[in-house]
Amino acid sequence: MEIIRTVDELRRWSRALRREAQVGTREDIGLVPTLGALHDGHASLIRAARSRCRNVAVSIFVNPTQFGPNEDYSRYPRTFAADCALAEAEGVGVIFAPSVEEIYPEGSATFVDVEALSARLDGKTRAGHFRGVATVVAKLFVAAEPDLAFFGQKDAAQIAVLRRMITDLRLATELVVCPIVREPDGLAMSSRNVYLSAAERAKALSLSRAVRQVETLVARGERRASALIAAADKIFATEPSIRVEYIEVVDWKTLEPVENAASGTLFAVAAWVGETRLIDNTIIA
Amino acid sequence: MEIIRTVDELRRWSRALRREAQVGTREDIGLVPTLGALHDGHASLIRAARSRCRNVAVSIFVNPTQFGPNEDYSRYPRTFAADCALAEAEGVGVIFAPSVEEIYPEGSATFVDVEALSARLDGKTRAGHFRGVATVVAKLFVAAEPDLAFFGQKDAAQIAVLRRMITDLRLATELVVCPIVREPDGLAMSSRNVYLSAAERAKALSLSRAVRQVETLVARGERRASALIAAADKIFATEPSIRVEYIEVVDWKTLEPVENAASGTLFAVAAWVGETRLIDNTIIA
Repeated sequence: MEIIRTVDELRRWSRALRREAQVGTREDIGLVPTLGALHDGHASLIRAARSRCRNVAVSIFVNPTQFGPNEDYSRYPRTFAADCALAEAEGVGVIFAPSVEEIYPEGSATFVDVEALSARLDGKTRAGHFRGVATVVAKLFVAAEPDLAFFGQKDAAQIAVLRRMITDLRLATELVVCPIVREPDGLAMSSRNVYLSAAERAKALSLSRAVRQVETLVARGERRASALIAAADKIFATEPSIRVEYIEVVDWKTLEPVENAASGTLFAVAAWVGETRLIDNTIIA
Repeated sequence: MEIIRTVDELRRWSRALRREAQVGTREDIGLVPTLGALHDGHASLIRAARSRCRNVAVSIFVNPTQFGPNEDYSRYPRTFAADCALAEAEGVGVIFAPSVEEIYPEGSATFVDVEALSARLDGKTRAGHFRGVATVVAKLFVAAEPDLAFFGQKDAAQIAVLRRMITDLRLATELVVCPIVREPDGLAMSSRNVYLSAAERAKALSLSRAVRQVETLVARGERRASALIAAADKIFATEPSIRVEYIEVVDWKTLEPVENAASGTLFAVAAWVGETRLIDNTIIA
C-alpha cells in the first residue's frame, strides 16, 4: 500500500491508471474520502469500493474548512497508524494523506458552494460546513478523477450536496451510497462515538430508536411528515438531557421539507448528547 | 473542425487524446475559452494555442452568470457562423458550443467563488461577475482538462481570479496570458467595441492613451501609484463625457492596491463611453 502526500502524486497515480485502462466489469478508480479515525462503517465503504473498482484510494484528511470555529476540529480523533492498518488489511492500494497546506495553499481563497442545499439540515447550525465539504471533495475529485466515490448514508445531507455539486460542475465521478453500519445495539457508527461517556452512550440510542420507530411507522403506511416527526419527538422526550438540533422529513435531492413522505424521502435527525453531536437517518425506499 | 455541444462529448474528446498522448515538445490539449464574437484578439489566442498544443478547442458560450441583471447579456453580440469560419481558418480542431441548460442544468446551485479577489476591480461594481467566470471556467477545465488555457491580458483581473482558482482547486491546467491586441489607433480589441458610435469610438481612445501614458511614465522611472493614477485622471479629464469606473494600481496576483509600482504590478482602468463599458491595462515588466 502506497501513502501519497501530494495532489500532484495523486494525479499521477490516477492518470497512469487511466492510461492503462482495461475493458471489464469493474471501474478503474474508486475513492473513499474520509476524515480518518476509520471504523467498520469505513471498512464497509472500502469493501464496496474494492468490489466495484480495480484500484482503490482512501483519502484521510481532517478538513479544517468543514469545522466551525467552536467545533471539534482540534480534538477530532486522529489515528493514522490504525487507519493504515485497517486500509491495508482491506486491500487498499493507496492512502492519500495530505497536509492542510497541501489542500489549502497559502493565500487560498477559492470555495465551492452548493447554494440553497448548503443552508439546510446540518447547514442551518453548522454555517460553512457544507461549503467546506464541497470544496475539499471537489479538490479530491479533480485530482484523483475517480470513476466512483463511496460515501456512507449516515451523512445523507452531505450526499445531497455532493450529488448536486457533481451534476453542476460536471464532474466525471459517480457517487455510491453505502448503508449505515450500526453497533449491535443500533447506534450508528461514527468517529465521534469515542467522545461519549458510558452514560451518554446509553442515551445516544435515542437517535437510532427514533429512526427505527419512523421506519416502523412508514412500514405500517404512515406518510405524514408531522406524524413521523411527532413520533421521534416522543422518543427524545424520554431523554430530556439530549438536545435535539433537528428532526426533519425532506426530499433527499433538494433537502426541502415535504409534507408527506414518499420514495426518496429522507428522515434525518441531529442531536447533542453532552458535548457530542450525533446524526442518524433513514431513507424511504 | 468538429462542433461539440455537450460536456460528455467534450470529455470523451479530451480523454481520447489523453490516451493517445505523445512525447514531444507540444502539449496535448489547449483550450481557448471565449464568449464568441471572435476578433483578432481571439485569433491571436488561437495561434498561441496552436503553436503550443497539438489539439485546440475553442469554447463559445455567452455565460449568463457572469452578467449582472442590468448588463448586456441579451444584446451581447452572437456571431456563431463567423466565429466558426475564423476558428476553422485558424486550424482549430473543435468548437465547444453548449446550450445554457448544458452548462447550468435544471436546479443548478453550485458556484465557485474566489473570495477577496472577486470583490476587487471589476468585481466592485459587477457583483457576482467573477463568481460567474470562475464557475464556468471551472466547468470547462473539469470537462476538457486542457494542459494549457489561453486568455488575453485585457481581462487582467479575471486572469488573477482564475490563477488563484487553478492553484486552490488544484486544476491541472496552466493559464497562458497573451498580449492585448489593439486596433491601429490603439483601442484594445473587444467584442463590445461594436456597441460604440463613431463619436464614442473616438472618445474611447482615452483608455489606451491613459495606458500608454502610464507606460511612458514607468519607463521614465515613475513608480508612485498616486502619480500614475493622477496622469490617467488628467487624460480622462479632457473627455468629461466618459465616466471612469476605476483607475487602479494593484498587485496582479492579489489585486490589492500598491503604493509603488514594481514588476508584476497591474495598472488597470474601466470606463463607460456612453452605454458601453470598456477596460484596458498594462502590466509592469
